[in-house]
Amino acid sequence: MTDAFGRMLLDRADTEIIERSDGFISTSMLDYFAPVRRWAQVERRALRLVRGRVLDAGVGAGRVALELQARGRNVVGIDVSAGAVEVARRRGVRNVRLLAFEDVDASLGRFDTLVMYGNNFGLFGSPAKARRLLKRFRPFIGRIVAGSNDPYGTDDPAHLAYQERNRARGRMPGQLRIRVRYRDLADPWFEYLIVSPDEMAEILEGTDWEIRDSSATRARTTSPYSSRRSLWKPVSRVSDTGPR
Amino acid sequence: MTDAFGRMLLDRADTEIIERSDGFISTSMLDYFAPVRRWAQVERRALRLVRGRVLDAGVGAGRVALELQARGRNVVGIDVSAGAVEVARRRGVRNVRLLAFEDVDASLGRFDTLVMYGNNFGLFGSPAKARRLLKRFRPFIGRIVAGSNDPYGTDDPAHLAYQERNRARGRMPGQLRIRVRYRDLADPWFEYLIVSPDEMAEILEGTDWEIRDSSATRARTTSPYSSRRSLWKPVSRVSDTGPR
Repeated sequence: MTDAFGRMLLDRADTEIIERSDGFISTSMLDYFAPVRRWAQVERRALRLVRGRVLDAGVGAGRVALELQARGRNVVGIDVSAGAVEVARRRGVRNVRLLAFEDVDASLGRFDTLVMYGNNFGLFGSPAKARRLLKRFRPFIGRIVAGSNDPYGTDDPAHLAYQERNRARGRMPGQLRIRVRYRDLADPWFEYLIVSPDEMAEILEGTDWEIRDSSATRARTTSPYSSRRSLWKPVSRVSDTGPR
Repeated sequence: MTDAFGRMLLDRADTEIIERSDGFISTSMLDYFAPVRRWAQVERRALRLVRGRVLDAGVGAGRVALELQARGRNVVGIDVSAGAVEVARRRGVRNVRLLAFEDVDASLGRFDTLVMYGNNFGLFGSPAKARRLLKRFRPFIGRIVAGSNDPYGTDDPAHLAYQERNRARGRMPGQLRIRVRYRDLADPWFEYLIVSPDEMAEILEGTDWEIRDSSATRARTTSPYSSRRSLWKPVSRVSDTGPR
């Protein structure tokens, strides 16, 4: 199995290279190892929304899981990258598993919180997949604390053209097809869904999930495919009114 | 015409992305704008070998041409990238032309020195092309001051495998096929020749050029395709003995 992302973390490379399906290639400084003091303010603030037993989807090098463990949380980290799992384990994440996000089910037990930091709302992949997974998660996940950049916070012609092509194909504008490249490795292409606040709300319509709290902030860096603004969206179940 | 390299310089991007024909992709911090105090020592030292009227092949953003102008040299810069030509001109290089290295001929006039800094010996492309161009240059170029990394200063399995494949195909081990990528642009693939000191000498055999002075130093950075050592090789014509 190719594991460019995992190899990149194992080597602690300083640059992440992402290729988009239109050939757009971007680099960013790696922040998978960033201690909490270097996180965006919006991510630090959202820590107080994280309760009880936690599932960290896309655990990466474990920066979020480690911080939550330090705060006394019981965390299960999952990642589709074997290298990431190894790195997170080595760095002290106590419970890490090699598991794709779409394979999460009740066999993992009940979680009070699913965290999807660092733009990982994107793991939902597409609106249809998001709704399917949200329905499946309903019985065993209490709330979701997820982040997404806003795809419309850009005036870059290359990004706008990509969004327009997506629209023409009936896809969401921020529905990215991307892959990680590292040295001579290229991971398989995967779908990564970047949504605006309104789009996130639309995806939840007709599910028994709703947005409880959201906040936006300026991102520290210019994100390759999306925006100069970062958006933070805690999404929590309507536990006080019951399923709609 | 695609001009990823030029666009990268025009935007003053901070990272250069190079893709090799085996899919190996590397990034490096851009040093095309570095003032002389930030150059490798070997490049600073070699400035004293540069005499008279100068041709700067692969002028890029003009760092070498500008330094030579400041030292009173008459410099002609050439580059195959229109964006590079524009950037070099804007930054004050007085004589810059859009011209491929292989199209250099006597119509440009006589040059006391051809400079090929920043690993630009690679522009010779292949041993055959190098010999052909050296023969053509003989009547109107006095000396060449050129740099090359040493392809054998690496123990990276990916680079060693690439060299081995080159050997199997009758190519020189350091005969790279690469291209620059920048955002959604990809330049055409081109041949870039990285040689050891011995290999440089071998290429010159049978020509009326010989190596007069060479020195090696540790490079500031790990070079993607070659070595942890940087090699500097001034090549000068055997003007005291005449053509061999």
